[in-house]
Amino acid sequence: MSTHRSELRVGMVGYAFMGAAHSQAWRTVNRVYDLPARARMAMICGRDAGKVADAADRLGWESSTTDWRALVGSDGIDVVDICTPGDSHAEIALAALAAGKHVICEKPLANTVEEARAMTAAAATAQTAGVRSMCGFNYRRVPAVTMMRQLVADGRLGVIRHVRAVYLQDWIVDPQFPLVWRLQKDRAGSGALGDIGAHIIDLTQFVTGQRITGVSAVTETFVKERPLPAGSSGLAARADGDGAATGPVTVDDAAVFVARLGAGTLATYEATRFATGRKNALRVEINGSLGSVVFDLERLNELEFHDGTRLTAEQGFTRILVTEGEHPYMSAWWPPGHIIGYEHSFTHQMRDFVEAVATGVDPTPSFADALHVQLVLDAVTRSARDGSRWTEVEPALAALAV
Amino acid sequence: MSTHRSELRVGMVGYAFMGAAHSQAWRTVNRVYDLPARARMAMICGRDAGKVADAADRLGWESSTTDWRALVGSDGIDVVDICTPGDSHAEIALAALAAGKHVICEKPLANTVEEARAMTAAAATAQTAGVRSMCGFNYRRVPAVTMMRQLVADGRLGVIRHVRAVYLQDWIVDPQFPLVWRLQKDRAGSGALGDIGAHIIDLTQFVTGQRITGVSAVTETFVKERPLPAGSSGLAARADGDGAATGPVTVDDAAVFVARLGAGTLATYEATRFATGRKNALRVEINGSLGSVVFDLERLNELEFHDGTRLTAEQGFTRILVTEGEHPYMSAWWPPGHIIGYEHSFTHQMRDFVEAVATGVDPTPSFADALHVQLVLDAVTRSARDGSRWTEVEPALAALAV
Amino acid sequence: MSTHRSELRVGMVGYAFMGAAHSQAWRTVNRVYDLPARARMAMICGRDAGKVADAADRLGWESSTTDWRALVGSDGIDVVDICTPGDSHAEIALAALAAGKHVICEKPLANTVEEARAMTAAAATAQTAGVRSMCGFNYRRVPAVTMMRQLVADGRLGVIRHVRAVYLQDWIVDPQFPLVWRLQKDRAGSGALGDIGAHIIDLTQFVTGQRITGVSAVTETFVKERPLPAGSSGLAARADGDGAATGPVTVDDAAVFVARLGAGTLATYEATRFATGRKNALRVEINGSLGSVVFDLERLNELEFHDGTRLTAEQGFTRILVTEGEHPYMSAWWPPGHIIGYEHSFTHQMRDFVEAVATGVDPTPSFADALHVQLVLDAVTRSARDGSRWTEVEPALAALAV
Amino acid sequence: MSTHRSELRVGMVGYAFMGAAHSQAWRTVNRVYDLPARARMAMICGRDAGKVADAADRLGWESSTTDWRALVGSDGIDVVDICTPGDSHAEIALAALAAGKHVICEKPLANTVEEARAMTAAAATAQTAGVRSMCGFNYRRVPAVTMMRQLVADGRLGVIRHVRAVYLQDWIVDPQFPLVWRLQKDRAGSGALGDIGAHIIDLTQFVTGQRITGVSAVTETFVKERPLPAGSSGLAARADGDGAATGPVTVDDAAVFVARLGAGTLATYEATRFATGRKNALRVEINGSLGSVVFDLERLNELEFHDGTRLTAEQGFTRILVTEGEHPYMSAWWPPGHIIGYEHSFTHQMRDFVEAVATGVDPTPSFADALHVQLVLDAVTRSARDGSRWTEVEPALAALAV
Repeated sequence: MSTHRSELRVGMVGYAFMGAAHSQAWRTVNRVYDLPARARMAMICGRDAGKVADAADRLGWESSTTDWRALVGSDGIDVVDICTPGDSHAEIALAALAAGKHVICEKPLANTVEEARAMTAAAATAQTAGVRSMCGFNYRRVPAVTMMRQLVADGRLGVIRHVRAVYLQDWIVDPQFPLVWRLQKDRAGSGALGDIGAHIIDLTQFVTGQRITGVSAVTETFVKERPLPAGSSGLAARADGDGAATGPVTVDDAAVFVARLGAGTLATYEATRFATGRKNALRVEINGSLGSVVFDLERLNELEFHDGTRLTAEQGFTRILVTEGEHPYMSAWWPPGHIIGYEHSFTHQMRDFVEAVATGVDPTPSFADALHVQLVLDAVTRSARDGSRWTEVEPALAALAV
Repeated sequence: MSTHRSELRVGMVGYAFMGAAHSQAWRTVNRVYDLPARARMAMICGRDAGKVADAADRLGWESSTTDWRALVGSDGIDVVDICTPGDSHAEIALAALAAGKHVICEKPLANTVEEARAMTAAAATAQTAGVRSMCGFNYRRVPAVTMMRQLVADGRLGVIRHVRAVYLQDWIVDPQFPLVWRLQKDRAGSGALGDIGAHIIDLTQFVTGQRITGVSAVTETFVKERPLPAGSSGLAARADGDGAATGPVTVDDAAVFVARLGAGTLATYEATRFATGRKNALRVEINGSLGSVVFDLERLNELEFHDGTRLTAEQGFTRILVTEGEHPYMSAWWPPGHIIGYEHSFTHQMRDFVEAVATGVDPTPSFADALHVQLVLDAVTRSARDGSRWTEVEPALAALAV
Repeated sequence: MSTHRSELRVGMVGYAFMGAAHSQAWRTVNRVYDLPARARMAMICGRDAGKVADAADRLGWESSTTDWRALVGSDGIDVVDICTPGDSHAEIALAALAAGKHVICEKPLANTVEEARAMTAAAATAQTAGVRSMCGFNYRRVPAVTMMRQLVADGRLGVIRHVRAVYLQDWIVDPQFPLVWRLQKDRAGSGALGDIGAHIIDLTQFVTGQRITGVSAVTETFVKERPLPAGSSGLAARADGDGAATGPVTVDDAAVFVARLGAGTLATYEATRFATGRKNALRVEINGSLGSVVFDLERLNELEFHDGTRLTAEQGFTRILVTEGEHPYMSAWWPPGHIIGYEHSFTHQMRDFVEAVATGVDPTPSFADALHVQLVLDAVTRSARDGSRWTEVEPALAALAV
Repeated sequence: MSTHRSELRVGMVGYAFMGAAHSQAWRTVNRVYDLPARARMAMICGRDAGKVADAADRLGWESSTTDWRALVGSDGIDVVDICTPGDSHAEIALAALAAGKHVICEKPLANTVEEARAMTAAAATAQTAGVRSMCGFNYRRVPAVTMMRQLVADGRLGVIRHVRAVYLQDWIVDPQFPLVWRLQKDRAGSGALGDIGAHIIDLTQFVTGQRITGVSAVTETFVKERPLPAGSSGLAARADGDGAATGPVTVDDAAVFVARLGAGTLATYEATRFATGRKNALRVEINGSLGSVVFDLERLNELEFHDGTRLTAEQGFTRILVTEGEHPYMSAWWPPGHIIGYEHSFTHQMRDFVEAVATGVDPTPSFADALHVQLVLDAVTRSARDGSRWTEVEPALAALAV
C-alpha cells in the first residue's frame, strides 16, 4: 500500500446506483475540500467488460477490469470501495483487507451476522497494521444529521425519552413490479429491513449515542409472487408483460418494530416499500426531557429543533436551514440558503474517509459499528419469527470474542 | 322519557374540561344546524354545590344538583351526558339506561373491560325500548377525519397496507408536575394509553373500517414518583413545592404497539405524554395500494391526500383545506378558508346525536364500538405485561354473549 | 342608556354572514370569559319580517324588528351592533350615537371618506358623554396577531424594514359567478380593496404600530361583466344560467400597492379575489433588524417567529402553536394544542368591547383608527387612477378638523 | 474555433462564487448526461497569478492565466464562460464573440442598457457565423421551474391573472457588514435589484411566456454608509472593526415594484437583502383562471400545483416532489425522492448549452432575452426615481434597431 505524493488511488467494485453516487463523491471531494491527500479514481470493476469500460469512460475512472481480485491485489490501488450487492461484500472486503488495502464498504455490511463478524474481526486485525475500514452509512454525513448528534451530545435534549423513526418508500406498490435482486433473499439478505431499515437503525444510534438493546418486531410480505424481471437499472425495472413467468418474493416488504435504546429510551421503527406517495421519507423525531429534533431526508437541508428551555410562549419547532458556514460540512459549499442534495452526503463521507486515512486515524462508522446494526437486524428477524416476543440484541463484543 | 315539542332536555354530569367542551357544543348545535329537535341545557351535576351552581350560571345550564342519581331519575331530563372521570362512567350509565334516558358517555367508555361489557349489554337491552346510547369519540366528527373515512370507503386508497398513528403530548415532561387524577390507575384506568391512545385506536378503526385483531406492545412509566397535587383544573395543575409529599404514578406515561387490522393491514401506534414540544399531536397516516391520507389534529382543518392514480409527474400530497360547503359538516359554518377549532368536533357530535335520537336511529360509535376499543386497550396491557408477545384482541361479540 | 344589573342589551342590525359570526360571539363571550357585564342578545333587525324572525329564533335573539330606527331608539337597547353592507353604516351609526347607544360597527367603517369623517366626528362627540364606539377589525384579536404586536412593541424585531401583506381569495375566478352586492360600487364601496384589503391595512398598522403614509397602486377588474344574481347567501351565490341578463362589475377584482409606513418601512400589499386555490389567505410577514414574524389566517393558531439574536447555527423560523395559557385570550379556552377557529376572533373582540364599555374606557380600534384605514383606501384609489404616482395618505387629524 | 473530436474547450474568466459553481457544473455535466460533445476544462483566468493557479489546481482546470484577452484569443478555447462582476461582462463578451468563441455570460448581462444592447447586437452578428451565446439565468433549469413553464405552456393554469415574486435575503442586515463590491454601483450596476431581482424577472417571464410591459417601483437603501471591507469571499466578508473607515452604499438594499405582464397579468416583485431570517428565499406564485403554482428556491425539489379543474372537495395545493424520471433533467440523477441541490441548476444549464452548441442551435436565454431583463431593471430604476409613476419597459426590438 502506498500513499506517496499524498495520493489515494481508489479502486471501486460495482458501478450501478451506489457506484454512480460514489463516483460523483470521489470526483468532487478534493475540488471542494482542502484535504491532506487527493483521491484518484484509478480503477473500476464490473462483470461485463464492455459495460464496465463504458462506465469508466462516463464516470471518469482511469481504467476498468472484470476481475475484482486483480483490482484488490493491484499495486496501483490504495483504497477498495465496495458498491456491490450485499452477498459479495464479505468476500471482497476480506481479500482487500488481507491485501492491506483500506476499505470502504457500502451498507449493510453483509447479508448475515456471520459474515459481518468475520469482516469485523479482519478489520480489527488489519487495523493493527494501519489499514483503515469504514462502512458507508452516508446519512450520518447529512449536515442536519450531524448537527442533531451535536445537539444531543451537548445535552440540549436532556434525557432522551423517545425515538420515532420511519423510512418509507413506495417503489414496489405495484404488484406487477418485477422480482429484482433486491427482492431476493440470497442476493439482498433481507428486504426493506436491511436496505432502508438499516439506515434508520444506524442513524438513530449515531444521533443518540445509544445502542438498541432489544426489539419486538413484525415483518410482512404483502405481494408474495412477482413477475421475473426483463431488465433493471438503479431502483427502476420492468417486467416482461402479462404472461411473464413469476417467482416468489423471499424478503420482507415492510418491517416494524418497537425497541429500547440505552438505559430507558423507547423507540419505534418502520421500514417499508409500500407507503404510497412516500419516495424517500426517512424521518426521525427524537424527544428528550429538554428538547426535541425532527429530520426528514426529503428536506435534508432542514432541521427542526424544539428548545424546551425557552419561554413557554415562544417555544415551538424551529426550522433551521442547515446551510450556514457554522453548520457541519457546509463552509465549503455555497452561501447560506443555497441547498445541497442527496449526493453531498457521499462527498462528506469521502472527505472524512480521506482525512482519516491520510492522518492515520480510524474512520467511523467502523465495521464493528456496522456489525451492531447487523445484530439488530438479526434480532428483528428473530422476534418477528417468534411471535413478536421481546428479543435482546446480541452484544457485538461477544461476537468479536469469537 | 319525553321528547314533546321536539325538545331534548339534557342533564350533564361533570363540568371540568370535558363539561365545558360539551356545554359549548350543546349551546351551539341548534344555532348552526337545522335539526328535528332542540337541545335544552336543563341540568348540570357536580359534587360541590357552590361550584356547580357557579358552573351552571357561567356555562348556561338552567339548574344544578350535587346528586347525579336525582339528575338521572328526573322527569325533566331526556338525555344524560356523562363527562366524569372513567371510574364513574359505568355506574351512571347503567342507572341512566335503566331510567330510560338516552346516554352520551365520554371516552374511554369505562376503566375496565368488565364495566364496558356491562354497559354494552345494558345499552343493547335499552335499545330494544328505543333508548339510544353513544360514546363520545369526538374526533370522528372532525370534518377531515370524516372525509378520510369517505375516501377509504369509496375505494380511493385501494387495499390498505399501513396505518401509522401517534398521539403525542408533553404536559408531564416535568418530573415536578403533580400526581393528578389522570396519573392514578384507580381513577383513570390507564395513562396515555386510555386517555389518548384510545382516540387513535377508535379513529383508525373508524377511518379504515377495519378492526384491530392483535397487538405487540410496550408501555413505560418514565417518572415513577410525583409530588401530590395542591390543585388542578383541566390539564393544568401545580404541586405544593419542593418539600411536597409524593406518591407513585400508577399508570403508563407512554404506550407503543404494533398491530394488525382486518385481513392484512400493518399498523404502529404510539401514545405518550413525554414528547417535548408536541402539544396535541394526533397524527395519522394511512397508505393503501392506490393512495394515502395524512391527518394532524393540530391542523385539523387540513387533509393531505395522495392520489396514486394520477399522472406520475403530477402526483404528490395535496393539502386540502377542509372548509368547503362540500365537506362534511361544513356547509353550516363559514365561507371556504375560514377555519374551525377543536370544539367544533363536539358540536358535530351533538348534531349527529340529536338527529339520531330525534329520528329514532342508533347513533355511532355505539357502546359496542367503544367496548372493542376497550378490548384493544386490554390486549395492549396484556402484551406489554407478557414480554411484548403477540396478543389477540378478544372478540366483542363473545364478550356480549356473556 | 342603561347598564343596570351589569347587563349590556345588544341590538344587531343585519344577520347574514357577519350577523351569524357576531351572534356566535355574543352567545359565547360570557360563557368563556369572566367579565364585569353580561351581553344579552336583545333584538335583531332585518328588512324581511319573516326572515328576521326566523333568524332571531335560530341565532338566539330575544326579539326582532324590520325597523332599524326603532332598534336604535329603543330603551331596551344599550349597544348597537352594525353588520349591514357598508352603504348603510354611516346612517345607522350616526343615529345610534345620537341616541346615546354604544356602537360596534363592522369594517370597513364606511363606503366613503366623507361618511367615515362624519362618523368619527360623531363618535368623538358622543365619547364626551361616555358613549363608546369601535370598528370591527376582528383579526386584531386572533391571538397570534395580538402576539405579533407584542413582539414588535417589546422591540423583539428591532427596526422594522419590510411589511409583506397579501389577502388572497378565489371566490369569483369563475366569470359566471353572478353580480352580487359585493361587486357593486354603490353597495360595497369598493371590491377586494375595501373588503379584504382593509383587513391587511389595519392589521399591519396595528402590529407595527406605524401608519401608512403614502402609496403607489394598481387596481384591476379582470371580469368586467357578470350575470345578474338569482340569489345569494354569505359569499356563495348562483346565476340564473346561460341566458341570464348581465351587468357591469363596478369594483376592483384586485388591488396591489407599494407603501411606506412610519419613518422608513417599505411595504407591499395585495388584495385579490382571483388567486385560484387561495381561500382565505391573509398572510403577513414583517422583517425587522433583529427578527421577523409570519402569519397565515388559514393556520391562525400558528405564528412563525425568527429571532435574529440567537446563535447563527440555531436560527430559523419557529412555529409557535399559539394555544398556551400564556398566549393572548387563550387561558379561557382549551388545553395547549387544542386549536380555535375563525369565529373566536369575534368572541375575543366582544370580550374586549364588553370589558371596555363596562369599565368606562374606549375600545379599539376606534372610529378614528378606521377612518385612517379609509384614508389609505382612498389614497390607493387615487394613485391607481393617476398612473400609480406616489400618493400621500391624507392625515386623519386634518380630516377631523373639518 | 474548433469542435473536432466532439470536444468543447472551455475558458472561464473569474473563479469566485460563480466560478466555483460553474466549475462544479463543467466537471459533472458529461459524467451524468450523455451528450454529443464533451466539455474540457481548459483554462481559467484571474487577476492574481498565484491565486488563479491555486484555483486551477483546486477546481480542476488544465491551465491558468491572468490575461483574459489571451484566453479569449487562444486557439485552444472554444467556449468563453464569463463569471466576473458585471462591469467587465461587455468588454470580455464582445472580444470573445469577435474572436468567434461561443459565450456563456453570467447574469445580469451587463451593468447598463447600453452595454447590453451592444452585446446583443454583437451576439446577433456572431450568430450568423454559427457562434452561440447564452446568458446564465440558471434557475430556469431548476426542474421544478422548468415544470412550471410546461404546465403554463400546456394551458393547465388557464389565463394568467397574478404573478407574485419575491427574492429575499438577509446577508447585509447588520449595519457593520462592510462595503463589498456588490454594494458599489460602479462594480455591480445595482444592488438587490440587479443581483437577485433580475432572477425573478427572468424566471417569471420564462415561466409565463409573457414579458413585463410596465412597472411602478420604489427602491430603498436602508443603511447608507458602511465600513470599508478588509477582505471578502463569496457573499461573506468582514470589516476591519469599529474604527474602520466607511464609504457610501451606492446601490439599493431593496427594490419593490408592481408590474403588468403580457395582455393583462398583474404582478408584484420584491428583491431585498434585509429580510431577516430569509437566506435565499426566491418564491414565486402564479395564479391562473384554472390553476396555480408555487415555487420556493429553498425547497427547490418541490413544486406546489393547484389544479382548479378537479372536484371541489379534493382541490388543494399538491406538493410534487420533482425527483421522478418523468421530470425535467431528473432521469439522469438519483431514484425518486433523492433530492438535488442548488449547483445542479448549473449542471443542467451546461447540459443544454453543450447540446445546443454541439448540434448547432441557439441556446436560451439569449443575450436578447437578457437585454429585456436589463430593460425592465432600467424601467424600475426610472420609475423609482420619478415618484413611482407608471413606466413602460422600452422594447428590446427598438433597442436592437439602433
